[in-house]
Amino acid sequence: CSLMLRLNTRSLATTPVGDVLFPTKSDFPSRHIGPRKTDVVAMLDTLGFKSLAELTEKAVPQSIQLKRDLSLDKPLNEHELIQRIRDISLKNQLWRSYIGMGYHNCHVPHTIVRNIFENPGWTTQYTPYQPEIAQGRLESLLNYQTLVTELTGLDVANASLLDEGTAAAEAMCLANRHNKRRKLYLSNKVHPQTLAVVQTRADALELEIVVGPIERADLRSRELSGILLQYPDTYGDVKDFEDIAALARKNGTLVVVATDLLSLTLLRPPAEFGADIAIGTSQRLGVPLGYGGPHAGFFACKQSLVRLMPGRMIGVTRDMDGNDAYRLALQTREQHIRRDRATSNICTAQALLANMSGMYAIYHGPEGLKAIANRIHHFTLTLQTGLLEAGHEVVNKNFFDTLHVRLSGDLSLEELKERAEHKHINLRYLPDDTVCVALDETVSVADVNDLLWCFRAPLTVEELLARKDVLKNSIENSKFLRTSPYLQHPIFNSYHSESRMVRYMKKLENKDISLVHSMIPLGSCTMKLNATTEMMPCSFRHFTEIHPFAPVEQAQGFHQLFSELERDLCEITGYDKISFQPNSGAQGEYAGLRAIRSYHEHRNEGHRNICLIPISAHGTNPASAQMAGMKVEPIRILSDGTIDMAHLRDKVAQHANELSCLMITYPSTMGVFEETVAEICTLVHQHGGQVYLDGANMNAQVGLCRPGDYGSDVSHLNLHKTFCIPHGGGGPGMGPIGVKAHLAPFLPGHPVVSPLASEEHSFGVVSAAPFGSPAILPISWSYIKLMGSRGLKRATQVAILNANYMSKRLEQHYKTLYKAENSQLVAHEFILDIRDLKKTANIEAVDVAKRLMDYGFHAPTMSWPVAGTLMIEPTESEDKEELDRFCDAMISIREEISEIEEGRMDKTVNPLKMAPHTQAQVISDKWNRPYTREQAAFPALFVKPDAKIWPTVGRIDDAYGDKHLVCTCPPILPDL
Amino acid sequence: CSLMLRLNTRSLATTPVGDVLFPTKSDFPSRHIGPRKTDVVAMLDTLGFKSLAELTEKAVPQSIQLKRDLSLDKPLNEHELIQRIRDISLKNQLWRSYIGMGYHNCHVPHTIVRNIFENPGWTTQYTPYQPEIAQGRLESLLNYQTLVTELTGLDVANASLLDEGTAAAEAMCLANRHNKRRKLYLSNKVHPQTLAVVQTRADALELEIVVGPIERADLRSRELSGILLQYPDTYGDVKDFEDIAALARKNGTLVVVATDLLSLTLLRPPAEFGADIAIGTSQRLGVPLGYGGPHAGFFACKQSLVRLMPGRMIGVTRDMDGNDAYRLALQTREQHIRRDRATSNICTAQALLANMSGMYAIYHGPEGLKAIANRIHHFTLTLQTGLLEAGHEVVNKNFFDTLHVRLSGDLSLEELKERAEHKHINLRYLPDDTVCVALDETVSVADVNDLLWCFRAPLTVEELLARKDVLKNSIENSKFLRTSPYLQHPIFNSYHSESRMVRYMKKLENKDISLVHSMIPLGSCTMKLNATTEMMPCSFRHFTEIHPFAPVEQAQGFHQLFSELERDLCEITGYDKISFQPNSGAQGEYAGLRAIRSYHEHRNEGHRNICLIPISAHGTNPASAQMAGMKVEPIRILSDGTIDMAHLRDKVAQHANELSCLMITYPSTMGVFEETVAEICTLVHQHGGQVYLDGANMNAQVGLCRPGDYGSDVSHLNLHKTFCIPHGGGGPGMGPIGVKAHLAPFLPGHPVVSPLASEEHSFGVVSAAPFGSPAILPISWSYIKLMGSRGLKRATQVAILNANYMSKRLEQHYKTLYKAENSQLVAHEFILDIRDLKKTANIEAVDVAKRLMDYGFHAPTMSWPVAGTLMIEPTESEDKEELDRFCDAMISIREEISEIEEGRMDKTVNPLKMAPHTQAQVISDKWNRPYTREQAAFPALFVKPDAKIWPTVGRIDDAYGDKHLVCTCPPILPDL
Repeated sequence: CSLMLRLNTRSLATTPVGDVLFPTKSDFPSRHIGPRKTDVVAMLDTLGFKSLAELTEKAVPQSIQLKRDLSLDKPLNEHELIQRIRDISLKNQLWRSYIGMGYHNCHVPHTIVRNIFENPGWTTQYTPYQPEIAQGRLESLLNYQTLVTELTGLDVANASLLDEGTAAAEAMCLANRHNKRRKLYLSNKVHPQTLAVVQTRADALELEIVVGPIERADLRSRELSGILLQYPDTYGDVKDFEDIAALARKNGTLVVVATDLLSLTLLRPPAEFGADIAIGTSQRLGVPLGYGGPHAGFFACKQSLVRLMPGRMIGVTRDMDGNDAYRLALQTREQHIRRDRATSNICTAQALLANMSGMYAIYHGPEGLKAIANRIHHFTLTLQTGLLEAGHEVVNKNFFDTLHVRLSGDLSLEELKERAEHKHINLRYLPDDTVCVALDETVSVADVNDLLWCFRAPLTVEELLARKDVLKNSIENSKFLRTSPYLQHPIFNSYHSESRMVRYMKKLENKDISLVHSMIPLGSCTMKLNATTEMMPCSFRHFTEIHPFAPVEQAQGFHQLFSELERDLCEITGYDKISFQPNSGAQGEYAGLRAIRSYHEHRNEGHRNICLIPISAHGTNPASAQMAGMKVEPIRILSDGTIDMAHLRDKVAQHANELSCLMITYPSTMGVFEETVAEICTLVHQHGGQVYLDGANMNAQVGLCRPGDYGSDVSHLNLHKTFCIPHGGGGPGMGPIGVKAHLAPFLPGHPVVSPLASEEHSFGVVSAAPFGSPAILPISWSYIKLMGSRGLKRATQVAILNANYMSKRLEQHYKTLYKAENSQLVAHEFILDIRDLKKTANIEAVDVAKRLMDYGFHAPTMSWPVAGTLMIEPTESEDKEELDRFCDAMISIREEISEIEEGRMDKTVNPLKMAPHTQAQVISDKWNRPYTREQAAFPALFVKPDAKIWPTVGRIDDAYGDKHLVCTCPPILPDL
Repeated sequence: CSLMLRLNTRSLATTPVGDVLFPTKSDFPSRHIGPRKTDVVAMLDTLGFKSLAELTEKAVPQSIQLKRDLSLDKPLNEHELIQRIRDISLKNQLWRSYIGMGYHNCHVPHTIVRNIFENPGWTTQYTPYQPEIAQGRLESLLNYQTLVTELTGLDVANASLLDEGTAAAEAMCLANRHNKRRKLYLSNKVHPQTLAVVQTRADALELEIVVGPIERADLRSRELSGILLQYPDTYGDVKDFEDIAALARKNGTLVVVATDLLSLTLLRPPAEFGADIAIGTSQRLGVPLGYGGPHAGFFACKQSLVRLMPGRMIGVTRDMDGNDAYRLALQTREQHIRRDRATSNICTAQALLANMSGMYAIYHGPEGLKAIANRIHHFTLTLQTGLLEAGHEVVNKNFFDTLHVRLSGDLSLEELKERAEHKHINLRYLPDDTVCVALDETVSVADVNDLLWCFRAPLTVEELLARKDVLKNSIENSKFLRTSPYLQHPIFNSYHSESRMVRYMKKLENKDISLVHSMIPLGSCTMKLNATTEMMPCSFRHFTEIHPFAPVEQAQGFHQLFSELERDLCEITGYDKISFQPNSGAQGEYAGLRAIRSYHEHRNEGHRNICLIPISAHGTNPASAQMAGMKVEPIRILSDGTIDMAHLRDKVAQHANELSCLMITYPSTMGVFEETVAEICTLVHQHGGQVYLDGANMNAQVGLCRPGDYGSDVSHLNLHKTFCIPHGGGGPGMGPIGVKAHLAPFLPGHPVVSPLASEEHSFGVVSAAPFGSPAILPISWSYIKLMGSRGLKRATQVAILNANYMSKRLEQHYKTLYKAENSQLVAHEFILDIRDLKKTANIEAVDVAKRLMDYGFHAPTMSWPVAGTLMIEPTESEDKEELDRFCDAMISIREEISEIEEGRMDKTVNPLKMAPHTQAQVISDKWNRPYTREQAAFPALFVKPDAKIWPTVGRIDDAYGDKHLVCTCPPILPDL
């Protein structure tokens, strides 16, 4: 072996010789991508292709193919990556931030961090649309709802919204929906970012907004749809709103109160002074700051408004055996969005973060939460006493945790700033030279002493306690004292030792299917691997412990991350600029459309307001268009699933003067690479319109084609699909938008920290935090850095291979509804048409979905985009064995259906109609079905007792739940 | 509320006023201790006590009670603790260590870190003595055994030993057991710490040791019991031992080879050149350095020696239905240790670390492991080429990863050291001014270039590759090349995508009961909470990435930790000095007895060699005494379980001149605080003996009484029992010993890094690493810092309360075998006597144990210390509800037994004899038992389908497994 090496020494690391001599032991793409090389060959062979390149050359239309490699950094291995991102994180500086404004540092209980936040059993769950294998997280989210209703005093709450700002916007829109009035009055003491989000949302809907002192709201005019108050307000003041609320109620105006859940353990809750709706964030209940997110926004309202409530809500119902069971309540509203008549486009929630806050409340219980609140409040009182001693004025007389301070003449603002910076402390400095200080759970005596020092206060905490009655001004001694009990349910009073807490979390986890069990082949949802290495940086304290409004100089690590990720995403998509602000795909759609609208307005074409949307589009598309103030014109599709080009041409011509944009999903929601996409884009541009390309299906494109190249102007990117952020059981997500340069000036801005170089053309604000949810961006950044250009391309190719392989394997048994006309290939997902089975065997999609649970699988997407069908997306992370097992299950189910068709099995009592089967059913002594227990529970050889995944309830009775709506923890169960 | 505060401001934090004003929200003792305050009152009431103090005043003999609080630091809360220990960890400096000597840095796959090492589902498992609910870890350990046999080429391997040093010692003792010869020849090229451990062990057994060049071993004398070689040796040299091994075999001498598993992916394995036994450490296969441990030692041998093999071994057998199942093989040998005739006292293994190494091999597969090895080897070849170029001499011509370098005249050792220090690189500097450099998996081109720079080598890696044939001297081109295949089993070739890997780990985890499911009430094993906060520091890289032989200046964080923990443990026990070296309780016993022996020798009383041991002692006590070269004299016990004082007095008097010591467990292994313990200690001292108090039951004493106060001279402390290190499914453990001052000079030393101030009287070395397993010491340190003196005392009190409460609740149904005569109380555990049931219902302890699984519980300790009984230890971490559930299960089982007694249930086919019940059994269509499926699977109301814990195999057939011994992965299963 005489390997004499003549090579350019500079390029050693990338030469094959270097690779041969020093092979890297860990090649991340081969960890991320499921099928082994030999499997890929076998699968390609099944499809009649010789290589992945040959397959995707055929699958992707020639006209749009990217003919080069993406230009990305050389991929890092997993250990290099952690080193690199650790170094980046250390560029963030951890100052103490007493800025408040809805974001407060807190102590996340370590057992919750490790057993939920860092546990793939929780993070990789999908949204609980299949309740029988999701009772764990449904129970947890119901706990969260109960927490919110109990603390606000209101009747019902949803299972979280994206953040406080959007919750406020949803509330104001609800008011408009409720009483049809078009004028909203917002207190000027609401957090500025909340005001901005509401204002932005109202603009597009042409709702009138007035911002001012709440006392000036002309309630008697009976023109106000709703008023928005904050309690305690953004400056920390606690005011009595009882009279205002009474007057509002009398005049048909809804009262919306932004509030702080922790403060409500001490303060009289909003419901008791007349609020109809309470909103806010539960961040400080056990979720890290993370430079702005993700956190769970909350939304609670009176029972009378429940059917107008946005977002997802968990409800109690029963299963087919009459047992209590949880499920998404009022599902029909959520699943069948009212398209262009919708007033909310909400899909993603913040389930994982809501679960953390719910668990935080369970861990501490009512007494523990109150102790935390009292600790904070008492520190605030002590600080107040010290500041008064020093001659400063405390503007707000009643407060929970925030003091609004006017400095005495002896201390200038500059000097205060200097002293605070010396101590690495951030305060909220207001334009009128006053200052706000908001204390939090982590504050210690030493911290308050440092604050007193900053303000040149003469006495320390110890001295103040010895000399002054610091409690004189406390909530306890005020009319604001809460007297009503809360969180009396056993769930909040039983899990206070760590052993019990861990067992409770583990018990819930083990009820649910997640990616740690088996593939979750959800069409359009891209449930791919969420690798540990990608997740690890989310726990780095230099990412988790930064306030979103900390000075930008302290967040240089984050800003480097943003800029590197932006560069990579631009290269991947062909866009020029990214806004990270949108927290979900739907938010991205809304932001993108608003940017388009601003662009037209800026060119004095503000009249352009027609948005063309193919009828096959996801329901959020028309809803977002409506919210962006556009008029939706549907475009027909042909029987092969493709856009009806003739109809499109007609429409474009017809609306040439009013055409704002076209929204299109690519590959189409039918799972097909349409040949005409470039042509469509050109057509729209020719008529003065812009193209919004829904990025939900980017997983079929990365490295193969780029929306920015073939004509799209803007897309959102679901980082929680293509770019590996886990679904968390229904959030967090991220929906940043990429735009071509001409749209860049119109991206979202922010009133506190601007994400834009210049904001003159920004259409407004879509999220409470300037950069959305930065704390999870390391996941997507890491994925790209680990994969590199070749890895990313191969991932896409294998995603397409996997889908086509499955479609092929199933073709003898089920019909794939749509394929591309030329290639006869699907993209990265495909639709199985099972509508005929309704006639032949009385079997519907839901029956197949439920029966799949008995085989250990989560159902594919049901009845979307075509009613009565199943859409399967395997992703590249699933290996051939897993795909084969899933196909075997589908084939076996088809055989079971044949038995029904052929009369060998009963039409109503059969393994599909009765699915899923629970332990209680198959172990019951009273089994009397025309099939065996073993057929029920172990329907295939690969379903074995040693790894059987059991649904914990039988088939859910949705109708019962809708009739008997219960959305808080049910009464005490005997085993608690 | 006029709370005018007049108080000493200095003591604010500890005053009640401060507590009232700023309540700490997180009180760790209330998280660690299960029962709530109201529960404690109710439980005390059941027992007729008014307070915990009253209970424990009565339970603990007056004469030994500690009448003051322990003097420990003020307890930290969980967040303060993490901050504190992070600061300590940062005092360790992370240099690159190329020291080798059996410890190599490696990349632990992140998915294994998170899903095993940081996952309580794996860490809190107990040793798999109950195979039906332990198939997951049994399979994993079997994988480990297969890894070891395949790489060494030998027939069988055990499921890990404590480290390489003790594995070598065990091997040499095995040789002696095998051929009864008393002379051992050790190559002088074995790691010095291995030589030291073997030498120390041999001393006590009076085996003759010769250390020298292996070529000089006089094999023809037929006097040598065994020879110990190292391959590659400690200086990196790879030698051909075939002739020596052949000669040894011919002359009846066993050939023991210390080896490096990773090197064996390239090198011809020991079995192929004639080894009978191979030993070593699997640390570099995916386990962090951790300043010395914990890591798994391995032990493999020929089939002919299997029944002499020490430690635990997993074997394949079948269950009652004939299904394949795993279990601890040759259990009888392990469970019924041959007491003073035993030659090994091994209990603890390193299961968690063996699992990690096994998973590392599964993750990488044979090709991956070989790539890693080649990468290291090729870097070593490159470095060699560069050093030769620079004029240095590389002493070893054949090597895998380590070069032994004699410097050229141009570079002095001092200069090399200086340059290496400048680069933060540690090398192995030898007394003869040569140097060893050992490369590892983490080494990069930049690292090798730094090394070349240190040696003043003129060329870089890039230049060397361009100009030289670096592979000329490779293993591939040598006669040492391995030609035999390895790791061909599907288990090592199927889980290479992360999705599959995670699912495999999760599948195994979910087969097993651990503390995340329910209480594990193992008498004498103290399965208490292992809190997340205690575990977190074990993942800090400043703890995990330090070589045990790095200069002490670089490990100041660890040394601070040692010294703080030593201070705390001394305060808790009343001892004066701690040695952290022993890695298990049994090792601690051995070390403590050796210290006593040295102490006598030092006083010229070396003839004192009688060790008195009550017959109720754990079998390791006499085994350790034997290993320490003592003669065991058993002391009788009375029918009430207490020591027969008359017999003790006789024995003490009889052996007054030869009395070395007494070994005693306190509270006794019967679960009783004997009144006579102080008297016993005095008696022994009066006769010139020392007292060894087995610390296994420290959980009944902490804060209440101190062995050092009432007369004991030395104890080991099972940190994995009382001090919260999790059991890890059978290790790691730690058994440091505490001694009174007069024994301190005789504690373990170390040939490389001395743990003692002066070693002149040290008896020798018991572990490969100087401080045992430092990487898990943060757990115990944290526990003490979090609990504080009051918390620790309360924990002990509640442990005693819990045991007495259970004993009381069960007294109508089962008899508690022993209670203290005066108090009629048990200590922290108690024995249920169920021997009568054999006669009345044909029911034995094993039947109750297996039936408990159907109720979701792990069995208590079976048939120890009294055959046919069950010993229950609840610990303080279990809450009242859990204790009640367990009692309810036991009571319900008693009712089931009554049915048998009364003839209402069959004597052979009944829920106990057939337990545990599997899914396959109860779901089978062929159920034909005289009780229902529901009775089988859901025998109590609290056993519900939604949280049912299923055994994955039916009752194990031990006899079959013993007859058909299979200890590697069984042939390919159809589902792989």
